[in-house]
Amino acid sequence: MALPYPFTAIVAQEEMKQALMIAAVDQSIGGVLVFGDRGTGKSTAIRALAALLPKMRVVTGCAYNCDPATRKPGLCERCIGDPDAELKGHAVPLPVVDLPLGATEDRVIGALDIERALHKGEKAFEPGLLAQAHRGFLYIDEVNLLEDHIVDALLDVAASGENVVEREGLSIRHPAKFVLVGSGNPEEGELRPQLLDRFGLSVDVRTPTEIKTRVSIVQSRDAFERDREAFIKKWQRKEGTLRKQIERARSLVNEVDTPEQLLERAARICVALGTDGLRGELTLIRAARATAALAGETCATIEHLDSVVLPVLRHRLRRDPLDESGSETRILRAMANLEA
Amino acid sequence: MALPYPFTAIVAQEEMKQALMIAAVDQSIGGVLVFGDRGTGKSTAIRALAALLPKMRVVTGCAYNCDPATRKPGLCERCIGDPDAELKGHAVPLPVVDLPLGATEDRVIGALDIERALHKGEKAFEPGLLAQAHRGFLYIDEVNLLEDHIVDALLDVAASGENVVEREGLSIRHPAKFVLVGSGNPEEGELRPQLLDRFGLSVDVRTPTEIKTRVSIVQSRDAFERDREAFIKKWQRKEGTLRKQIERARSLVNEVDTPEQLLERAARICVALGTDGLRGELTLIRAARATAALAGETCATIEHLDSVVLPVLRHRLRRDPLDESGSETRILRAMANLEA
Amino acid sequence: MALPYPFTAIVAQEEMKQALMIAAVDQSIGGVLVFGDRGTGKSTAIRALAALLPKMRVVTGCAYNCDPATRKPGLCERCIGDPDAELKGHAVPLPVVDLPLGATEDRVIGALDIERALHKGEKAFEPGLLAQAHRGFLYIDEVNLLEDHIVDALLDVAASGENVVEREGLSIRHPAKFVLVGSGNPEEGELRPQLLDRFGLSVDVRTPTEIKTRVSIVQSRDAFERDREAFIKKWQRKEGTLRKQIERARSLVNEVDTPEQLLERAARICVALGTDGLRGELTLIRAARATAALAGETCATIEHLDSVVLPVLRHRLRRDPLDESGSETRILRAMANLEA
Amino acid sequence: MALPYPFTAIVAQEEMKQALMIAAVDQSIGGVLVFGDRGTGKSTAIRALAALLPKMRVVTGCAYNCDPATRKPGLCERCIGDPDAELKGHAVPLPVVDLPLGATEDRVIGALDIERALHKGEKAFEPGLLAQAHRGFLYIDEVNLLEDHIVDALLDVAASGENVVEREGLSIRHPAKFVLVGSGNPEEGELRPQLLDRFGLSVDVRTPTEIKTRVSIVQSRDAFERDREAFIKKWQRKEGTLRKQIERARSLVNEVDTPEQLLERAARICVALGTDGLRGELTLIRAARATAALAGETCATIEHLDSVVLPVLRHRLRRDPLDESGSETRILRAMANLEA
Amino acid sequence: MALPYPFTAIVAQEEMKQALMIAAVDQSIGGVLVFGDRGTGKSTAIRALAALLPKMRVVTGCAYNCDPATRKPGLCERCIGDPDAELKGHAVPLPVVDLPLGATEDRVIGALDIERALHKGEKAFEPGLLAQAHRGFLYIDEVNLLEDHIVDALLDVAASGENVVEREGLSIRHPAKFVLVGSGNPEEGELRPQLLDRFGLSVDVRTPTEIKTRVSIVQSRDAFERDREAFIKKWQRKEGTLRKQIERARSLVNEVDTPEQLLERAARICVALGTDGLRGELTLIRAARATAALAGETCATIEHLDSVVLPVLRHRLRRDPLDESGSETRILRAMANLEA
Amino acid sequence: MALPYPFTAIVAQEEMKQALMIAAVDQSIGGVLVFGDRGTGKSTAIRALAALLPKMRVVTGCAYNCDPATRKPGLCERCIGDPDAELKGHAVPLPVVDLPLGATEDRVIGALDIERALHKGEKAFEPGLLAQAHRGFLYIDEVNLLEDHIVDALLDVAASGENVVEREGLSIRHPAKFVLVGSGNPEEGELRPQLLDRFGLSVDVRTPTEIKTRVSIVQSRDAFERDREAFIKKWQRKEGTLRKQIERARSLVNEVDTPEQLLERAARICVALGTDGLRGELTLIRAARATAALAGETCATIEHLDSVVLPVLRHRLRRDPLDESGSETRILRAMANLEA
Repeated sequence: MALPYPFTAIVAQEEMKQALMIAAVDQSIGGVLVFGDRGTGKSTAIRALAALLPKMRVVTGCAYNCDPATRKPGLCERCIGDPDAELKGHAVPLPVVDLPLGATEDRVIGALDIERALHKGEKAFEPGLLAQAHRGFLYIDEVNLLEDHIVDALLDVAASGENVVEREGLSIRHPAKFVLVGSGNPEEGELRPQLLDRFGLSVDVRTPTEIKTRVSIVQSRDAFERDREAFIKKWQRKEGTLRKQIERARSLVNEVDTPEQLLERAARICVALGTDGLRGELTLIRAARATAALAGETCATIEHLDSVVLPVLRHRLRRDPLDESGSETRILRAMANLEA
Repeated sequence: MALPYPFTAIVAQEEMKQALMIAAVDQSIGGVLVFGDRGTGKSTAIRALAALLPKMRVVTGCAYNCDPATRKPGLCERCIGDPDAELKGHAVPLPVVDLPLGATEDRVIGALDIERALHKGEKAFEPGLLAQAHRGFLYIDEVNLLEDHIVDALLDVAASGENVVEREGLSIRHPAKFVLVGSGNPEEGELRPQLLDRFGLSVDVRTPTEIKTRVSIVQSRDAFERDREAFIKKWQRKEGTLRKQIERARSLVNEVDTPEQLLERAARICVALGTDGLRGELTLIRAARATAALAGETCATIEHLDSVVLPVLRHRLRRDPLDESGSETRILRAMANLEA
Repeated sequence: MALPYPFTAIVAQEEMKQALMIAAVDQSIGGVLVFGDRGTGKSTAIRALAALLPKMRVVTGCAYNCDPATRKPGLCERCIGDPDAELKGHAVPLPVVDLPLGATEDRVIGALDIERALHKGEKAFEPGLLAQAHRGFLYIDEVNLLEDHIVDALLDVAASGENVVEREGLSIRHPAKFVLVGSGNPEEGELRPQLLDRFGLSVDVRTPTEIKTRVSIVQSRDAFERDREAFIKKWQRKEGTLRKQIERARSLVNEVDTPEQLLERAARICVALGTDGLRGELTLIRAARATAALAGETCATIEHLDSVVLPVLRHRLRRDPLDESGSETRILRAMANLEA
Repeated sequence: MALPYPFTAIVAQEEMKQALMIAAVDQSIGGVLVFGDRGTGKSTAIRALAALLPKMRVVTGCAYNCDPATRKPGLCERCIGDPDAELKGHAVPLPVVDLPLGATEDRVIGALDIERALHKGEKAFEPGLLAQAHRGFLYIDEVNLLEDHIVDALLDVAASGENVVEREGLSIRHPAKFVLVGSGNPEEGELRPQLLDRFGLSVDVRTPTEIKTRVSIVQSRDAFERDREAFIKKWQRKEGTLRKQIERARSLVNEVDTPEQLLERAARICVALGTDGLRGELTLIRAARATAALAGETCATIEHLDSVVLPVLRHRLRRDPLDESGSETRILRAMANLEA
Repeated sequence: MALPYPFTAIVAQEEMKQALMIAAVDQSIGGVLVFGDRGTGKSTAIRALAALLPKMRVVTGCAYNCDPATRKPGLCERCIGDPDAELKGHAVPLPVVDLPLGATEDRVIGALDIERALHKGEKAFEPGLLAQAHRGFLYIDEVNLLEDHIVDALLDVAASGENVVEREGLSIRHPAKFVLVGSGNPEEGELRPQLLDRFGLSVDVRTPTEIKTRVSIVQSRDAFERDREAFIKKWQRKEGTLRKQIERARSLVNEVDTPEQLLERAARICVALGTDGLRGELTLIRAARATAALAGETCATIEHLDSVVLPVLRHRLRRDPLDESGSETRILRAMANLEA
Repeated sequence: MALPYPFTAIVAQEEMKQALMIAAVDQSIGGVLVFGDRGTGKSTAIRALAALLPKMRVVTGCAYNCDPATRKPGLCERCIGDPDAELKGHAVPLPVVDLPLGATEDRVIGALDIERALHKGEKAFEPGLLAQAHRGFLYIDEVNLLEDHIVDALLDVAASGENVVEREGLSIRHPAKFVLVGSGNPEEGELRPQLLDRFGLSVDVRTPTEIKTRVSIVQSRDAFERDREAFIKKWQRKEGTLRKQIERARSLVNEVDTPEQLLERAARICVALGTDGLRGELTLIRAARATAALAGETCATIEHLDSVVLPVLRHRLRRDPLDESGSETRILRAMANLEA
């Protein structure tokens, strides 16, 4: 309800901003996992990006945010069954759904509508937060404190773009495509490797240590809170420019070429690092394409690929008992060896 | 129901009194966490401050303590939807809501009104303690014994000023701004750093050790309990003076200037202490401003800033395995080094 | 239902009898905690004292034992709302409520009246054991085996004299003043210091080791069980004398003076022992006053104070790793040092 | 339903048989705890004793086995309220109630009658196993595997002869006097000392090791199982003789004298052994009296007393870290020292 | 429903087959516990034996498999109450009831019939698996993984031949005689000695190690699965012979003599092995008699006794810390010493 | 709903593909357990195989996928009871049922239909996922994270081809034959040997390490995702060929001969490896037959047998503390020794 902080006014935190933009260009890349210090504006950045992105058209009266322009397999059951040749829609801002602490699995994936069950004897489905987040963002603060089975369910849905519910005698499926953003503090409990691997990108955010940067952040924040409208106005043009850049990248991304040598380089990096499976490689290719599209180019290059290696692979390394170096060091070293 | 002890009659405990007054001047500073001995009058102090503060006007018949003078985004759904151009209100004392041991999450954040659900088949929301505490105080004794997820929910609401409920098929939001005061005994279980960081201020209260002070406290307390009305009358004038001081500070606080060198000093202290994120700095600035306003000044000074460093940062230090000194010692040393 | 053993016929156990009498004279002193051996007649003593005390007048038809002579703030909601200028009452013996093992929190503090909720759709409150115990005694055997949250709730109510219920959509408060007596065996689980501190007095009861005393106890008990009525008759006069002594003390206790040197001595003892907070001192003063009143005097003396130091402070000492002495030794040593 | 084994046909196990007879003569002595090997006929012995004892008269239609000859305080609420001057009764065998594994607390102490609550909206009490066992036996196999709170509730009722129920809005009390017999294997989990102390008597049963005895037991058992009726007939006269002995002892026991030197001896033994409280002494006196009554005598002697010291005190000794001897050795040694 | 494998076609596993036949001849011997490897045809053997045994006559319409030829105490309440002089019956195969993993205690012992309770307001009992198994077999795979309280309830019923249900306000008893067969893998959790002791017999089954035997088993199994009807036909005659042998043994077993020297030998073996209680001896005698009856003899001999010592005592030895030998070795050694 | 990837287009992973084909030819072989790295296309392979297999005919309106051509014992209760001489059917693709994380036991095995129970007072069964999977595939990702009792229930049903439900007063059985495929990561919790043994086959899948293979997989996947229809068309012929091969194998498999020397070799291998029970041997024979059938041959050979030894026995070895070699090494070594 309150006006959000402008995305372009965020000071520093470049890696996080880039990762969020890549995920916004190609949702199939998977969620973004943000490691790091508290109080570094993670929640602010997501809300800012959602507010920046162009509004979306939804079918009027649809509880699942269906897109009136989508073909049938991507619609909810009600919209598929609609007799009208064309569905009526209207524009709304992108949803940013917070997973509040204490939200039950029922509320997340949806559940039997008790009210209707009790009064009408009908088994109706009541959509959950996953339905609300369709085509927008789902933000989980401290994802490492969530129970594994909920994280797992979320990642399943994020990966397949579809929420399949099998419980209480219900058998429902509805589209649920969203950018999942989880924040976590590695010092408090870890995610299982199985779950880590399913996040598309990860970024590390740290509290800036330069006095100048810090003062600048506090000043911006202070100015924003004293007069939100004036502050937002000041950044309006920059926001417009970035919005167009992302829109163009979205329309471009499916056309971007990926030369075989790019695939080979991706494979070599992954083999050198010993990552399990091929999700690493597939994500490297997709993230390189999205980066190229953001740059307005139609062919992904080695530079595009290399720029996304850290966020794509950082959380996919196995712990190596003989190598105590951090993930970043190991990745950079592997890339340097490739050249040699 | 019983008449409370006068705030100005509280003997000693200056840091706690100052912190509560700062929180009363600028609610956005966040809750106050009171560490320390049992039997030191924490609960008394909060009730005393609430009784001292000017009454507040609430919309008649509103279950959420809405302010008839507020603009729409800060009202509850019912008040927003009210057709009358102007809402009718009346004055009530500031609420002090105790979180009783054994209170369920339902009762805290509100829940489905079972009675109406069973009898009328309607899904109505029944407001919880958070709604009752709106615009007043919420006091939790032994906050460290509360389950993390409830503390977390409370801090979320205290920070955002809004209670968002997503459960049992309900999707409700209503304003809930209050000063959260938690007391805790560090010897019995600790709060997670993640939670600590979200409290605005913290104070240490200790049993006084001077015989004179102790006798004086016991005498006051005894006099109060033998004849409450006579005791309260004796302190009436002092209470009036302090009430006006706080009222003026509240109207002044948004105008107080914060020169850039103040921001730099705040940043330097935080960097020196290695606190995570920027919440420390933002709170330092706000608390300095509230202190200036309480002093009737329109520009925050180094002295104002320095006077709040302990309560703002005490609970934000990471444990340093190489430095066994207490938090206070480390903060004072860091400040001394800045000068050097 | 069965006739209780006479209080004055109890052999030995002087400290326990004195503590119970003090608590009967001034209920605001807080509960009595009885440590010690099983089979030493704790339950007998409480029932005996309750039977000895003068009957109390209660409002006819009130489920909360309201006193028809009390002014409004101390009545239950129904009695406050009663249109009659004067409430009708009748006399009943003081209640002694046992907290049976397995009693649920619902039954202790009261709960939604399910029957009325189901049949009339009304949310009515069904008073619990706390309401039943109002103005009498609440006895908990093996209080250290009770869950902390119930003990805590009991102490809250005992301290405030009011039961505040916030659950299942109920928001009820009713007066609940009673003498809480808990028995505990320190060998089986300890109470948290936080809880200990909230008991007003504590006593140690031990199995007597003199053959004479033991034979005398067993004989009395045997005589009582063989012919209760004859036994009770034998002690009737002594019981009457003690009843009058307590009645007089009750009317006297609010008039008893406490010279400043008494307050100082209380403070000095507490400082020497390092007890937390000021509850120790406040209770010392009150217990000294009640002792004076029991002796029929109008000014508390050093002797009165000293006679209650053990029961007031015994359970309030912190464990001192450098001093392995028992609590009693430490208290007596501290008092001896004061003189020096 | 099946015909039970005759009590007098039980081979060996003299201590167990004596303890059960004492408990049958004076129920107020408390339950009997049987330690020892499995397969030694504990359950058989109890059923045998119950079948041997004279039938009891119960009020026709009473769910609590009320005795038509009892005065009011010992009747259930319904029988107390009965308008008839005299209650009608009929004779039934003594109940032996088994506490089956998996019996819920509801079923043991009684509970809300759900059926009536649902259909008539009445809160009626449905009596539990304690009501069924009134005036008979309640047998718990492997009492050490039962949850403490149920054992505790059982012992409370066994001690007071009254079942007090405070739950689900019910407040019921009814008489429940029975001989509680618990069997336990000390190798599998122990009872808390607090619980042990509340059993009146304890006996050790061991598998006999003489071939002759064993063959004789197996032969008896075999003969009984091949033709129950013939076997029972063979023992009929012995059973009759014992029945009369117990009946006479019951009418005699309240008249038996206990000279002061007996009380002193009981006290001396308990002091020497350091048992807590005075339950040991009281039980010694009562058991000595019951033993005298079984012998048809009107004055308890030292011999009577000494014959019950083992079963009364065996389970009441504290563990002595400096004395590894078994309980029996310690008791016998203490008694030998007394003489010296 | 599917045709079972013929009992006589089972290759090897002689001890298991013998134990099952003994239990089928005299159900009062108690259950059979089968230790050992997975995949050794335990379930197959039980189903095979049940199919081999003569059909049983049951009262038409009785949910408890009552036998129309039984006298009253062995019938269910409905059949006892039947006004007809003679109950009508019909023949059915012996039931083999599997206790499926996840079966609730309700379903095992029976429970309140919720449907009738809800719709007719009647408290009716819904029989469980124990009722279904009456007069047949109850098979529990991996009995060591079952919760103790369920195993215990099963053994209680198996021992007494009666199911006593005391819960939810129901008080029901019905006959439930069955051969309980439990399989267990000693490597995965052990049964408590208390439970072990209550199984009548135990056998060890091992995977055969001779190639010939193994090929022969696989061939039989394969032949059976390719054409069940042809396979069964081939074994029809052998099945008939064994059926008659068991029928004759059943009618003979109650007439078999057991000379005193047999009882003495049984006692001597048990004393030598130090088994607790006398269940071992009683079971030895019964199993020897059943073995004699299967051999068509009317007097049990030393050979019959010796042939059952292993299955009767194997699971009844205490662990001996000074003797690491297996149970079988210890039993055989003890028997050898007897001769000496 | 989305078009699946073609089975024949799967690059590498030969062992997994072969195991799935064997299970598709002879369902009685038991489930397939897939160990190994994440992201290696396990789920893709199963969906691909199901899409490749010929459609199946099901009885119209049957909730259990009954086959109109099956004889009675293999039908559900409703289809058995159908009065029509011939059941009407129609063709549908083979079901692939995913066991979603969070699916309850109710939903898996079926449960009481609450809706009908509440509104019509009927106890009707609501089929679960097992019914949906009948005649198709049931896929469980991370089977090692599932609770044992659910895995056990699944394996029971998979083995018997029948789902037996005994709960909530329901007693239902319906056919449920399916190929169970479980994936597991041995690094995260292990399955109990008892469960492992019940899977028919197991395979290890590893991330390919050759750059060429990896690039080729990524390219195929990429091509598929960019234009599914075009990609599928390209593989249509190969898919048709494989479909026919499997169909022929299915009709052939029951005719395949297994010479005695094959049985002996199977037994020798199992004895050498010390596997428990005979499930290993039975599965070896069946898998060899299915392999022969896939090759279009009517007699199983040593080569067929040897080709399935790894997938049949890999998960059936006991851990050997003296032999640290992996399962594969031990199997291959045992086979080599056989020849010698």
